[in-house]
Formats: sequence, structure tokens, C-alpha cells
Amino acid sequence: MNTEEMEKKEKIFEVAKNAVISSRQMRKAGSSQKKDALVKIAELLESKADDIKFRNEIDVEAAREDGLPEALIDRLILDDKRIKSMTDGIREVAEMEDPVGQIIEEREGPGGLKIRKVRVPLGVIAMVYESRPNVTADAAALCLKSSNSVILRGGSEALNSNLAIGHFIQEALSETELPAKSVQVVEDTDRELVNHLISLKGMVDIVIPRGSEKMIETITEKSKIPVIGHGKGLCHIYIDETADGQKAADIVFNAKVQRPGVCNAVETLLVHSSAAGDILPGVLKKLEDAGVELVGDERAKDAYEMQPASKEDWSSEYLGLKLSVKVVDSVREAVEHIERFGSHHSDAIITEDKENCGYFLNNVDSACVYCNASTRFTDGSQMGLGAEIGISNQKLHARGPMGVRELTTYKYHMMGTGQVRT
Amino acid sequence: MNTEEMEKKEKIFEVAKNAVISSRQMRKAGSSQKKDALVKIAELLESKADDIKFRNEIDVEAAREDGLPEALIDRLILDDKRIKSMTDGIREVAEMEDPVGQIIEEREGPGGLKIRKVRVPLGVIAMVYESRPNVTADAAALCLKSSNSVILRGGSEALNSNLAIGHFIQEALSETELPAKSVQVVEDTDRELVNHLISLKGMVDIVIPRGSEKMIETITEKSKIPVIGHGKGLCHIYIDETADGQKAADIVFNAKVQRPGVCNAVETLLVHSSAAGDILPGVLKKLEDAGVELVGDERAKDAYEMQPASKEDWSSEYLGLKLSVKVVDSVREAVEHIERFGSHHSDAIITEDKENCGYFLNNVDSACVYCNASTRFTDGSQMGLGAEIGISNQKLHARGPMGVRELTTYKYHMMGTGQVRT
Repeated sequence: MNTEEMEKKEKIFEVAKNAVISSRQMRKAGSSQKKDALVKIAELLESKADDIKFRNEIDVEAAREDGLPEALIDRLILDDKRIKSMTDGIREVAEMEDPVGQIIEEREGPGGLKIRKVRVPLGVIAMVYESRPNVTADAAALCLKSSNSVILRGGSEALNSNLAIGHFIQEALSETELPAKSVQVVEDTDRELVNHLISLKGMVDIVIPRGSEKMIETITEKSKIPVIGHGKGLCHIYIDETADGQKAADIVFNAKVQRPGVCNAVETLLVHSSAAGDILPGVLKKLEDAGVELVGDERAKDAYEMQPASKEDWSSEYLGLKLSVKVVDSVREAVEHIERFGSHHSDAIITEDKENCGYFLNNVDSACVYCNASTRFTDGSQMGLGAEIGISNQKLHARGPMGVRELTTYKYHMMGTGQVRT
Repeated sequence: MNTEEMEKKEKIFEVAKNAVISSRQMRKAGSSQKKDALVKIAELLESKADDIKFRNEIDVEAAREDGLPEALIDRLILDDKRIKSMTDGIREVAEMEDPVGQIIEEREGPGGLKIRKVRVPLGVIAMVYESRPNVTADAAALCLKSSNSVILRGGSEALNSNLAIGHFIQEALSETELPAKSVQVVEDTDRELVNHLISLKGMVDIVIPRGSEKMIETITEKSKIPVIGHGKGLCHIYIDETADGQKAADIVFNAKVQRPGVCNAVETLLVHSSAAGDILPGVLKKLEDAGVELVGDERAKDAYEMQPASKEDWSSEYLGLKLSVKVVDSVREAVEHIERFGSHHSDAIITEDKENCGYFLNNVDSACVYCNASTRFTDGSQMGLGAEIGISNQKLHARGPMGVRELTTYKYHMMGTGQVRT
């Protein structure tokens, strides 16, 4: 290790140390303190909108010079509307119920020992994410609300924007009783530093990667700290033989077209062979009219003209106006396909048959399983959890949308009067 | 890789594949099916007690020949009493409430979408453990009750015992509607195979290591699958200045002497300087009379004659009749010591002061924090969770005793009538 590397590691260690100290103070933060602090942050970010836009422009210019695709540049841009939506989000989090301190369960143990399961913060959260700078504000608000401290490491393309947002969050916090360093944006986006950060076991309690599948995989493999990955959404809709054609067309259209670039959009349509003749053409026509590119297996192509699907299509998260279509002979076959190629995120069946609905819900091993509704509802605010830090497609701790409550853990308070074990 | 290694890896892959197939069948298992199967297992193990003891003797003989310490050999032995206690445990699990299928929460989403948070099994559990063969039966029962399939990889010293127990569990299961291969004992204790097993992402859902700290650390670092480690218990008791002397003496005695070899026994005693003169000698005398070896810091030695504690003592889990003693000047200093050296397992304060009690409970970041009771209550059955697969000292998913409920996750059932997102 050369001197520069050593200094960089020391810096990230310092950031982690600040986070640990802040997290201990955050544990004691009262509900109204947190609420007031969040409102203060929203106010300051609003009043500093011009400064934020100025710093954001540096990122946008650089992205243009580097020839980043237009879609990515668009995600990067912070205008007044987006800053407003960011601060609205923070105010929304401010108003949410405080999860910390809630008594989850209470029971009497041996000899009258009082056992209380109490909700407490996780401690120090390290979040590694890409692109959109508004995630910096969202994540900070959710972590503060759940009394955690957070280390935010965004992508290099949004560094100036993220640092500006982080700077004003700290400035707002410094006028409150909460520790300013409970929110820290990492200044150096060197990848080696992420590896160092996710090795700081005993300091960082949980790592949340949010972004590309590859990034999440790398972090999961390298981390010495528990990880909750917010990965890809390869969502399926299966049109059963008893499906209502109109519902099928509306739901598939909504799940594909309403916002194709998100993780809860549908990527593969499965259709029962009995529905391929009458229901499928109507469903696909509506999609094609909206500009959706279709690829299908042989039988799907027999029912509607489209390009052939390649083997890779079944594992592809298009995140755009493209859909793969496959004909199956039973709900069982549909479930098998989903279990083989899916990402355990959100999958739906369209059916009027209760038994097939039940079979699908029980046997598709995904965070959200739907019957007769669009997969687009997999979302913290749609599901009543409030704002979300991401959508987990792993099974431990948090599954599906991860809101403030999922950013907590619990501990047992054991209140005795001298009890000993016999 | 040579042919032998390849064959071995193929075998463990085969085991994992069986587990995946079994876990899909287990998902559909009804509560009474599971209950009946567990009772059948208990009955068969009882009727095969002689066979089990015969196979166990092979392990015990080998352990004697290898010169294993007497304490380890004792842990290995299965006699009638221990087999009875093992099958009693299985019957107890049989009678427990079925956690699977429980509706955790229910709410109405947009447009009348019914959102149900339902408890479901984790899927495939891989458990890696050491020594005591009864863990094989305990873990199998808990995993079956929670509708999971389990791959059990015990220590080589108990291989014959574990295989015998596993064999009879499968025999009992084959007479039920549950898949026999939902419980599999790994026949080859080659370490490389564990590394292979914990790399089978997408097949194994969770890895539970239970045993030495070193083993847990190795598995946590190497696993590509989420791990819940059941690690060491370096538990503290802090005697506050307002402590009741009698309570202090009884609690410390119970926490150290009643069963010193377990993770919830106390290892370090912290005492407020004002209590060092009057309360401490009585506490320590009682321990010394019971054969406890004492080591202390300078001020502890001033209050009671004992050997000096070395630096290592504060990080040592003795698991035996030894205790380190340190004098501190405030509850704050006690908490700092615990946060620095503790294992986030179980820590207690003895105090008559409400404020100090509250400070301790809120600031010691352990799974179980006690006020005026023995740390020995950190135990699934004592805490009303029923039998436990272990005690987690990590924060994600399960903290403290991990019973059948902690062996489950949840999914969302989203029941619609055609809802789309606007």
C-alpha cells in the first residue's frame, strides 16, 4: 500500500468512526427531534436550490462530455421540479410514524421476568448506489427517521450533486440536536474505498447496494458485513386459461408501458395455450400500438406475428419497451418458468380460477405475488409502507419494499426483580 | 480439480438439488401433516435407541483414541436419557404453533387491492455445526416445523451418530406425505465441501453456522449466501452503585455457576467504585466458594484478593469457572467497556436506580439487555419462543434466540380485480 492509498483508507475509517459515534447519539433521538430536523433539512435544501442546481450542472456537463447516454443524463439532472419532489419526499418521511421504540411484543417470563421485544435502529448503514442524486436525500431522510447514521457512497457521475445535497443536510443538522455526521457523503468514489468500507465489520452494521446487478453481486461477494441487495426485477405476468381478456390487456399494458424503466415493470409474458388464440392477440396489439417490441417462442409467434425470442430473452431485464412472450400448457409450467428465470421480485397471474390463483401465490417464491393486478404496485408508498430505500429481493430481514421499519432491528429488554434461572 | 474432488462436489450439488425439490414440496405441507411427521420421527428414534447408541459408540471410541478432551467426549455421548431428551424436544416442537401461513399484516391498497403479508418458509437451510449430535435432531425438527428443508453438516467427530439420526428421520419421513429428503445429513465432512455448499447461491437460502467463533467467521467470510451466525457470548454483569447486594450476589452466582459452559453465562463482572467496598466482597466470596477462579484489575484486587487480569481477559469467553472483574466509575464507563469488548449477546445491570437502568438498556447494543436478572434467561424456551436453533448475535433478520418463527420469511399476496397503477 502506498501513502496515498493509506491516507484514503484512513479517511474512510474516519468516516466510519464518525458514523459509529453519531449512531450512538441517534439512538437517543426523540421522535419530535427527528421530525423537526427533517423539516429543517427540507427547508434548507429548498432555499439552496440554486446552489444545488449549480453543482448539479457540473455533473451534467461532465456526463455530456463523457458521452453518457441521454437516458442516464436525464436521470442525473436536478431541476426545480425534481428538487421540489425531493424535499416533498423528505417532508413525507418527517410525517411518518416513528418506528423506533415501538414495543413489538411483551410477555411474562419465568418468575415474573418482564420480556419486551423493542424496535431499535440498526446502527450504521452504508449505502452504495448509482446515478440519481435524489437517492442521497431519500436515503438520508429514511435513515434519520429510523435513528440510524448513514454513509452514502453514490456514483462518480453524480458526485458534485451528492456532495452538495450532503453538505446542506449536514448544515441543517448542525442547527438541531442531532449529530451532523449522522449523514455523510463519501467524497472519493475510488472503488477500492468501497471495498474497504464494506470490510469494516463491527463499525458498519449493514450494507445496502442499489443499482446494477453486477455492482450488487460484487458487493455481496466482497462484503464482510451483512448485505441487503436491491437487485433486478425480472417480473412475469401469466395469463391463465380462464383469464378475463380485458383485465389481461389492461394489466399487461400498465405493467409494461406505464413506466418501463423500473424494476416492477413486466419483462416476460406467459400465456396458457388455450388463451393464446383469443386473448393474446388483443393484449399484444395494444402493446405494439404503444411501440413495444415483441419477441416470442414458436407458439407465441403462431398466435401473433413477432420476432423469435432467443435463449437470452428469458433472462433479460429490458427496462424498456420490449417484452418476451411464451406459451405454456399449465399454471404449473408457468410457475416453473418463473422459478427458473425470475428474480423473486414481482410476478402476477391473470385468472378467474381460484385454485390456479392459490397455486400461483403459494408456489411462486417472490417478494410480491399478484392475482389480477399490475406488478407496478410493488412500491413502498403504494403498499402503505411510505417512502422506500429500495426493494429487496432477498429473503432475510426485509423482502420487497424496504421502508423505515425495515431499517430497524429489535432487542429484548429483560426487566427483573432478582430472577435467577433454576 | 481431480476426479475425486469433482465427484465429491457433484454429490453435494445433488444434496442441494434434493433439498430444493423437497423445499418446494414442504411449502405445501399442512400443519397436521408436519405435526404427525414429527411425532413419527420421535417414535422411530425412540424405538431405534439401541441402533443409535451403537453407532454413537463408534464416534465415542474414536474420540477416545484420538485423545479428545473429556468434556468434548461427554458432549458426544448419547445415552438413553439423552435420546429421551432429544425425542421430548421433537415432541415439543410438534406441539408448537405453526408459524407458516400466518397473516402478519393486512391492508387495502390503491383501488381496493388487497395486500397481505404472509409468513412463508425460508426454503433451503444449510446448517454447519460442531460436536453434540442431538443438534441434528433439534435442527431437523425446527426446520420441518417451519416448512423448510435442511442440509445438516455436523462435525466429523459425531459423523456416525449424526448419520444414524438422519437415517431414521428419513425413514420416519418416508412413511409420511412429507419428502424424506427434506432432512439430509452430509456424509462427507471434508471442509472443502462446506465451502462448496455455502457457494450454492440460488439453491441454498440461508447458512446457519453454530459452533466456535473461528468456524463462524470462516463461514461468514466465504459464504456467497446470507449467514446467521450463532457466535460467542461474552456476557457482562454490571453492579451499579445503587445495587441490592443480595440480588447482585444471587444473580452473578447464577449467571456464572449454574451452567458455566454456555453462551449466556457471565464472563466479566463490572462494579461501580462505590459498590466495590461493600457489595463486591460478598459477591466474590460466594463465587470463590463454588470454585470460581477470579482475575481483576487493580481496583478490584484492592477490594478482594485475586490474580491480576491480563489484557486478554476482557475479550475472553471462558466457558468455565473463571470470571474477570473490573471496577468502573459510572454506568457510562460500564456501557463503554461492554460496547468495546462484548459480543452483543446478553448483558445485565444490577441497580435500584431507574434512570441508570434505562440508560443501560438503551445504550448496550446487545440482543438481550437485562435489569436485575440473570443473563441465563437468554434462551428460546425461557423466553417463550419454544425450542431454538441457536442464538443470533447479529442484527439482521433474527436477533437473540432463533425459534421456528425466525426460520421463516414473508411474502406479499396482492389480490386484485384488475387494478392498474395510475
